[in-house]
Amino acid sequence: MIRIGLIGAGRIGQIHGRNLATQLPGVRLAAVADLDRAAADSLAERYAVPLVTGDPHELLQDAELAAVAICSPTDTHAGLIQQAAAAGKHIFCEKPIDFDLARIDQTLAAVQQAGVKLQIGFNRRFDPNYRKVRDLVREGRIGEPHLLRITSRDPGPPPLEYLKTSGGIFLDMTIHDFDMARFLIGSEVEELYVAAAVRVDPQIGELGDLDTAVITLKFENGVIGTIDNSRKAAYGYDQRVEVFGSLGMVATDNETPDRHRLADGTGIHGPLPLHFFLERYQTAYLEEMRSFVECLRTGKPPEVSGADGRAPVAMGLAAQRSYRENRPVRLDEVEG
Amino acid sequence: MIRIGLIGAGRIGQIHGRNLATQLPGVRLAAVADLDRAAADSLAERYAVPLVTGDPHELLQDAELAAVAICSPTDTHAGLIQQAAAAGKHIFCEKPIDFDLARIDQTLAAVQQAGVKLQIGFNRRFDPNYRKVRDLVREGRIGEPHLLRITSRDPGPPPLEYLKTSGGIFLDMTIHDFDMARFLIGSEVEELYVAAAVRVDPQIGELGDLDTAVITLKFENGVIGTIDNSRKAAYGYDQRVEVFGSLGMVATDNETPDRHRLADGTGIHGPLPLHFFLERYQTAYLEEMRSFVECLRTGKPPEVSGADGRAPVAMGLAAQRSYRENRPVRLDEVEG
Amino acid sequence: MIRIGLIGAGRIGQIHGRNLATQLPGVRLAAVADLDRAAADSLAERYAVPLVTGDPHELLQDAELAAVAICSPTDTHAGLIQQAAAAGKHIFCEKPIDFDLARIDQTLAAVQQAGVKLQIGFNRRFDPNYRKVRDLVREGRIGEPHLLRITSRDPGPPPLEYLKTSGGIFLDMTIHDFDMARFLIGSEVEELYVAAAVRVDPQIGELGDLDTAVITLKFENGVIGTIDNSRKAAYGYDQRVEVFGSLGMVATDNETPDRHRLADGTGIHGPLPLHFFLERYQTAYLEEMRSFVECLRTGKPPEVSGADGRAPVAMGLAAQRSYRENRPVRLDEVEG
Amino acid sequence: MIRIGLIGAGRIGQIHGRNLATQLPGVRLAAVADLDRAAADSLAERYAVPLVTGDPHELLQDAELAAVAICSPTDTHAGLIQQAAAAGKHIFCEKPIDFDLARIDQTLAAVQQAGVKLQIGFNRRFDPNYRKVRDLVREGRIGEPHLLRITSRDPGPPPLEYLKTSGGIFLDMTIHDFDMARFLIGSEVEELYVAAAVRVDPQIGELGDLDTAVITLKFENGVIGTIDNSRKAAYGYDQRVEVFGSLGMVATDNETPDRHRLADGTGIHGPLPLHFFLERYQTAYLEEMRSFVECLRTGKPPEVSGADGRAPVAMGLAAQRSYRENRPVRLDEVEG
Repeated sequence: MIRIGLIGAGRIGQIHGRNLATQLPGVRLAAVADLDRAAADSLAERYAVPLVTGDPHELLQDAELAAVAICSPTDTHAGLIQQAAAAGKHIFCEKPIDFDLARIDQTLAAVQQAGVKLQIGFNRRFDPNYRKVRDLVREGRIGEPHLLRITSRDPGPPPLEYLKTSGGIFLDMTIHDFDMARFLIGSEVEELYVAAAVRVDPQIGELGDLDTAVITLKFENGVIGTIDNSRKAAYGYDQRVEVFGSLGMVATDNETPDRHRLADGTGIHGPLPLHFFLERYQTAYLEEMRSFVECLRTGKPPEVSGADGRAPVAMGLAAQRSYRENRPVRLDEVEG
Repeated sequence: MIRIGLIGAGRIGQIHGRNLATQLPGVRLAAVADLDRAAADSLAERYAVPLVTGDPHELLQDAELAAVAICSPTDTHAGLIQQAAAAGKHIFCEKPIDFDLARIDQTLAAVQQAGVKLQIGFNRRFDPNYRKVRDLVREGRIGEPHLLRITSRDPGPPPLEYLKTSGGIFLDMTIHDFDMARFLIGSEVEELYVAAAVRVDPQIGELGDLDTAVITLKFENGVIGTIDNSRKAAYGYDQRVEVFGSLGMVATDNETPDRHRLADGTGIHGPLPLHFFLERYQTAYLEEMRSFVECLRTGKPPEVSGADGRAPVAMGLAAQRSYRENRPVRLDEVEG
Repeated sequence: MIRIGLIGAGRIGQIHGRNLATQLPGVRLAAVADLDRAAADSLAERYAVPLVTGDPHELLQDAELAAVAICSPTDTHAGLIQQAAAAGKHIFCEKPIDFDLARIDQTLAAVQQAGVKLQIGFNRRFDPNYRKVRDLVREGRIGEPHLLRITSRDPGPPPLEYLKTSGGIFLDMTIHDFDMARFLIGSEVEELYVAAAVRVDPQIGELGDLDTAVITLKFENGVIGTIDNSRKAAYGYDQRVEVFGSLGMVATDNETPDRHRLADGTGIHGPLPLHFFLERYQTAYLEEMRSFVECLRTGKPPEVSGADGRAPVAMGLAAQRSYRENRPVRLDEVEG
Repeated sequence: MIRIGLIGAGRIGQIHGRNLATQLPGVRLAAVADLDRAAADSLAERYAVPLVTGDPHELLQDAELAAVAICSPTDTHAGLIQQAAAAGKHIFCEKPIDFDLARIDQTLAAVQQAGVKLQIGFNRRFDPNYRKVRDLVREGRIGEPHLLRITSRDPGPPPLEYLKTSGGIFLDMTIHDFDMARFLIGSEVEELYVAAAVRVDPQIGELGDLDTAVITLKFENGVIGTIDNSRKAAYGYDQRVEVFGSLGMVATDNETPDRHRLADGTGIHGPLPLHFFLERYQTAYLEEMRSFVECLRTGKPPEVSGADGRAPVAMGLAAQRSYRENRPVRLDEVEG
């Protein structure tokens, strides 16, 4: 029985809490901590969690915990990772580690020194669609990859209050697509170029943020990629990828709640995509946690490493600069 | 240059006339006859046809014609085939040859005696979709065929006036599906069972006809098939087939005017099928005539023989009896 | 907290056991019984079930159980339902209740007398695809229904040993489709006609069973339906329905593990359907149990009643007779 | 009867020649000229064209010609347009007018002075798919457009000999996509950025050309677009567009020779796209000529103007510069 503690009982914490408590044989959700003690209590009661606390440090002192899942706000990630590592706990941490590359490096060094495992919560890597694409690309079914395309559009923008501390579209939203790009192509991005605008809501622009973006990526292995983002797709959550290569192409379509087609006098009509990330990536959230637990059991390294957590942050910083200066920016320009 | 005459300048005659006159290199539409002389004149003028007449027999006396295409009303088919055969012309004739099996036999005997070629206008055999299915089945790509399904629904019923002399749904509409069944499976139907009703328009029922039907077919080679018909599909012309076998399944979807998908807040919307047979089978009409001309050139037998014209009539007669008596009817029960 | 006992810890019992134990808030899997005591023990251990027994009657004596889920072999269903009803337990029972209509009637009478709820395990009614079709039909989106089509093909036949006591294809396999037909159309079948054969495996024929079938259904409300069955589809589990009506058509396609498309020099390739019922109907199994629990909580009648459990058995008996006598059989012919 | 002359009897000339000669009622292909006299003779014979010549100027002197279709090599376009205009002929000319903007301006001035009509052969505008997308966008069905995506991949590169004088990928291949972008969005591009490479064939690189490219477009109306090009898609001719806006999205898929799906033990397989532009754009070629003839008849302005012919050339020149200098280039930078 592997005992795991949960830090942060908010929206994403509740997903991981449920998966740890009910979906993974041989795993026990053994502790939950949240500064909002009521949130911690509520989750603990639902799953009969023995240790509940308003203080994450108390949780880290529980000697029986093999690992922790960090689901607290972004600005606490780096600190908690370091403390968990010092306490000898293996760590699953939601993305991003931090918005500052030096702070990330310091954090990853602490993890390495402690010899604990760290998996970053890029859940989409565990979605069956993207995994299938990655596998087919890796197996050479499309030959040498030449082009990559990622479509990633939200059903609606988050609250303005949230956006103020989100880090901006590239570090909050595109960061998932940056990770996906690396995952699918298996090569690093050397340079990127951003064209972006405020089209969805002028209030987003007033915050200094953007809501519509196209990013061109040049990879070390010669692949050219594009990501297109919008904070608002009227038809729901649009999450598609396509990889084109010398021998073919592989693409995914959106998942839908069912596969019906209705034909009437006006056309043939089908269902909208699953509404948003909680529905769309339900399987992915479970599978990433199953994979983390598997690493704890077998000792193999996590599928999403600390370095995988760092790279998309660097890409986000480069994207910010590319937009500001309207020019292609090399990734090494954002390094110390 | 092969000179061909056209008998009948109505709706279907105009299709064949246009194809003969403009789409087939090395072919000349050299004569046109219609009792409605104005219709003949109009078509002749459009394509600069040298011989125009109100009398089909005059056309048949044109010694330079290698062949005729008979597109006149059904009750003239058998007679005109026999006269054309006597005149030594090769013959393309619209379906059906006749509604009476004895009359069909007499007609086919006359054709055989004259040694001319006869092709029946089951145009759907030349549609690229069904041909692909037939080829895949024949090549063994689905193994031994077990099940067949034909969906054949019109966008709306023909005028009641037309229905009065149409021969009824089985000889007017299902006859195409009976032919398709034989074409796709390559085996004869031994027995069939009909469940049918009047659901579209009670006036059709008042004529003694039906507008909704499901026919179960048992083939000599063991395949079981179903055909479903409706005289009115609100979403247009619905023409699909599916063949299932020991190693797989092949199916076709409807053709549409384009391949757009529109996503909005209410769903994902696509185009309706091509509206009716003139649009849906435009290619098929051209290809059947190209095939007929090819037979004239090479001497090979037509792809749709006189026997192929007879079999679906027998199936239609069996279907009528099955409906009347509400029991499965063997095909040999409708033979003399 | 609703306490539910499980009778039968085999394949289907394990599905329901897992759902009761881990997926339904406010529900406790409180007892498990199986003649195979090891199977009961294994399941009990996995979910920390307090009461384990090799004797279902012992389980029924547990006063704290509000309900039982009967997942034992078919020949025990009627007896266990009656005993559970006598013990005042609400009952979820796998299909079929029994193969004998008189025994079913006796069982349903016992349930009614005891005043307990009975839900039959026609899980497919809870699949999101069919539910969507049923809802659209009910809402009038396709107008008056005219035609129904159900495709139901297994990836492979069950073991011959199983087939010997299965009741034959109509009571073992088509029974689900008979229920689906009633569910989608909301009307009773009056008459049916069967065309069937042994095409998959001659050994199935030697048992006196069939493996390939087409059933034509005539409903009270005038709809004509077809079901086609095969015990072996090379491409996997093929489960599709289509309802056609005066204003349109609604159909479902198979669910797949992902939505990728691979294009290469030979074609465009997509994934096979989910392999078999455990994968395909995973959601449906959970939702039917959620619905049963909801009935326990709210007192509303189950969505799949005892009468719903009886009707498909009558249809299966009529299908057997139709095949034997090669004629359409009215449902009232199989009634006492 | 409108008499039209054809200049250039090569591949594209033969398409237009056939359409003019056989597909357009009221139109006569009355003259054909090609420096390769044998090509002219062959085409003239096939369609019984009365005037055949090796000299385009002789053709232009035919007083009975209302218009000419210029299908000769690119470097002759500007000169022939000017001569045809001087001769008072209306002009259909294949793209591009020229590679030099000043020469184009001089040519368009000559056309304007002569008061003749000029239509440029951007045939894709007449493809039913793109036209549907353009119409839906124009009708506001997707609200304000935000993002555009064009996928345009050839089945294989042209001969190296052709590439030497093609003007390079942006002026030879992407030029169609530049036109499509303007057509679908109805706004001018202000700035573009190119990421490109040689991935298909190093010999293409040795010629100083590219075979793989991604172009980011910024439109005056705020839309951001991407075009991705490859000279070689293993699965055939890949031609898709997508426009995303405030209220939804519209996209097209490739046309295929049929709509079959084959399911077997390895997957679900469908047909490849229509192989190349002659098949894919067969309808578009006919419709553009029908539209040109309609302009001659009604006096309305051509749907693809001289200005429409110029803009994509400017975009191609900007793309060349963007690639050379690896920076976004404003369209006004390539103007005089």
